[in-house]
Amino acid sequence: MSLIVQKYGGSSVANPDLIKNVARRVIEGYEEGNQMVVVVSAMGDTTDHLIELMGNITDDPDPREVDMLLTTGEQVSIALLTMAIHSLGYPAISLTGSQMKIKTNEKHNQAMITDVDTTRLRKELAENKIVIVAGFQGINDNQDFTTLGRGGSDTTTVAVAAAMNANRCEIYSDVDGVYTADPRVVSDASKLDSISYEEMLELANLGANVLHPRAVELANNYNLELYIASSFNKTVGTIVRGDEKMEGKKNVVGAASDLGEIKITVERVPDEPGIAGKMFKALADAGVNVDMIIQNLQRDELNDITFTINQEQEKLAVKVLNKIKEKLKFDNYTIDQDVAKISIVGAGMQSTPGIAARMFTSFGENDINIEMITTSEIKISCLIKKEEADKALNVLHKEFQLDQINN
Amino acid sequence: MSLIVQKYGGSSVANPDLIKNVARRVIEGYEEGNQMVVVVSAMGDTTDHLIELMGNITDDPDPREVDMLLTTGEQVSIALLTMAIHSLGYPAISLTGSQMKIKTNEKHNQAMITDVDTTRLRKELAENKIVIVAGFQGINDNQDFTTLGRGGSDTTTVAVAAAMNANRCEIYSDVDGVYTADPRVVSDASKLDSISYEEMLELANLGANVLHPRAVELANNYNLELYIASSFNKTVGTIVRGDEKMEGKKNVVGAASDLGEIKITVERVPDEPGIAGKMFKALADAGVNVDMIIQNLQRDELNDITFTINQEQEKLAVKVLNKIKEKLKFDNYTIDQDVAKISIVGAGMQSTPGIAARMFTSFGENDINIEMITTSEIKISCLIKKEEADKALNVLHKEFQLDQINN
Repeated sequence: MSLIVQKYGGSSVANPDLIKNVARRVIEGYEEGNQMVVVVSAMGDTTDHLIELMGNITDDPDPREVDMLLTTGEQVSIALLTMAIHSLGYPAISLTGSQMKIKTNEKHNQAMITDVDTTRLRKELAENKIVIVAGFQGINDNQDFTTLGRGGSDTTTVAVAAAMNANRCEIYSDVDGVYTADPRVVSDASKLDSISYEEMLELANLGANVLHPRAVELANNYNLELYIASSFNKTVGTIVRGDEKMEGKKNVVGAASDLGEIKITVERVPDEPGIAGKMFKALADAGVNVDMIIQNLQRDELNDITFTINQEQEKLAVKVLNKIKEKLKFDNYTIDQDVAKISIVGAGMQSTPGIAARMFTSFGENDINIEMITTSEIKISCLIKKEEADKALNVLHKEFQLDQINN
Repeated sequence: MSLIVQKYGGSSVANPDLIKNVARRVIEGYEEGNQMVVVVSAMGDTTDHLIELMGNITDDPDPREVDMLLTTGEQVSIALLTMAIHSLGYPAISLTGSQMKIKTNEKHNQAMITDVDTTRLRKELAENKIVIVAGFQGINDNQDFTTLGRGGSDTTTVAVAAAMNANRCEIYSDVDGVYTADPRVVSDASKLDSISYEEMLELANLGANVLHPRAVELANNYNLELYIASSFNKTVGTIVRGDEKMEGKKNVVGAASDLGEIKITVERVPDEPGIAGKMFKALADAGVNVDMIIQNLQRDELNDITFTINQEQEKLAVKVLNKIKEKLKFDNYTIDQDVAKISIVGAGMQSTPGIAARMFTSFGENDINIEMITTSEIKISCLIKKEEADKALNVLHKEFQLDQINN
């Protein structure tokens, strides 16, 4: 008997009909003789609705109370999915994060899972029940409800699968797998049969919403194979796993554009040792995540330092820069919102020379101007003008023949 | 320092503005130097919305999952009320039934409170926090969420107040006290300054929605004085307490009509010992609550047995009667939905002869035909035609001068 852990995202349980659809899919697995553990998110826009309600009360809610509020979302969906399974004549039981004892640290709204106590889960499985688990939520040592932040249900799913040493871990949503690029932008984007944890992690960080980076990391830590597919059809999805092949890794498996960053240029910083360090330390201390960085020595021993951050942190960064401006003796800073980060990802690129050159050349041939570049072992990113993002993605997709990726 | 336990019903927290209103009222009590524990119900029609959602999934939901679903309602309102108090600059924390350890028996949907563990509550109060508690819900020994059934939040409130030995227990809703009759029917109905537990219990059982009978019983058991008032204004409400006066109890403190009963007449039942007993046992075993009963010996040693039940149990009763019809050898039964039960309540009536006579006479003088009568020590009820209910209520109100009740 296999143990399968499945996850269904919010759009997969957005209304009673979809919940019944999920119930039937879960029952199929059960009928095949598997033990089924199913993690669900809040229905469709429930969380948005709760946040709106909260917005009518306060602009500055206590994180503990936010979690008290938001954890109701999954509690509704687990109850309804369990009822739907019952109504089809199968045994099932729902468990909240607190009942499942998904233990987390104290950090409300962004809690980290510290332990999963599987006692109750094993008891219910031993009674041949399908167990429906609330994603996104846990409980801390005070018995207070916590939530895991973005992508929390993915993380719950992988954590439960790891704790149970599950035979399969399947993530179902409205996306039917991992694509070489966003199919809404690149018309011949192709779905990958498989992808490595590292590649998936880079793509996930770049905003491919199919799977949260935290969940990928956790799966990697436990070497847990994930299957990503759609809850709306039976199309074969994408497997995420450790790369078994030492050789023959693909150079480039995907291209992605991230429109959520802004570029900040700090002008005429004195060229003294440690100045850049002080600036980035001040930003980091305030919680600003800096992504790309370049530094240009200009005239008169003065540097321009340019970096990118997520646009959501603009206000925070501005506050920090205004505070340190005098101390660090820089002239001014400018903010450019008209940028897009275009990246290619592939575990094979580290052993294949010339990938970066091909990327830059293809941009040049298409009159796409590159403003910044960063590289990692399996990723190359360029910052370009926002309006060229879609074009750039198509250029790269063609250059690296991503439409033929599975051949 | 006094400890005040307050309850705000669903209509008192139906939207963000009303929640803010409740927050201000709670803070007033806190500012006066009191420790504040506040029990809240689900917002307005939240529960109805959840039940509707459930209805799209199944007609026969598992009671455990119903509780899993419904307990989210209060969880939302406690989080929002706590945020509203925070936003006004005061310390507060919300606790669910499970965090409060409102322990109940196993009976989902209609659980009985077995114990209230006040450890967490005392800890939070000791930190000078206003504590916001989810009404209606508890937790059983399996760590599963339970709900207390109708009037559950009232029961939670009284249970918490009793467990904490509170100085005051205040029930706020959209009703500003206990009236001598429904003010929508009797225009000069007057609000009672005070009422005894026994009288309140009878009125509550008769459908005065101001306070649930279970809560009244519990308050009586702990001799806990209750204050019933409106959350929408500062009008003085009604005190519910043990009757201190041995003498001078009022004959009649209120009149009520209950339109929710139906009359069933089982015709031509053989006049053998134990037949009626068998019939009512079969009904009771199926969970049908029988209210009024009369039995008329007819001709040929055959009886007609007439009784009333709540209209919600009609289907259930019909099922039982059809099953036992042959065994008990009765001819037929008829169901009359066109009935109303009109009652007068007063602790003093047991020591005052002639109250029943005045009731019947005043009905006779007003051409109101009485179909059935039952009496208890502090209540007399008559079954009449439904369309005469409002008239009958006004007749009684005048007869017993209930508009001058507090004089």
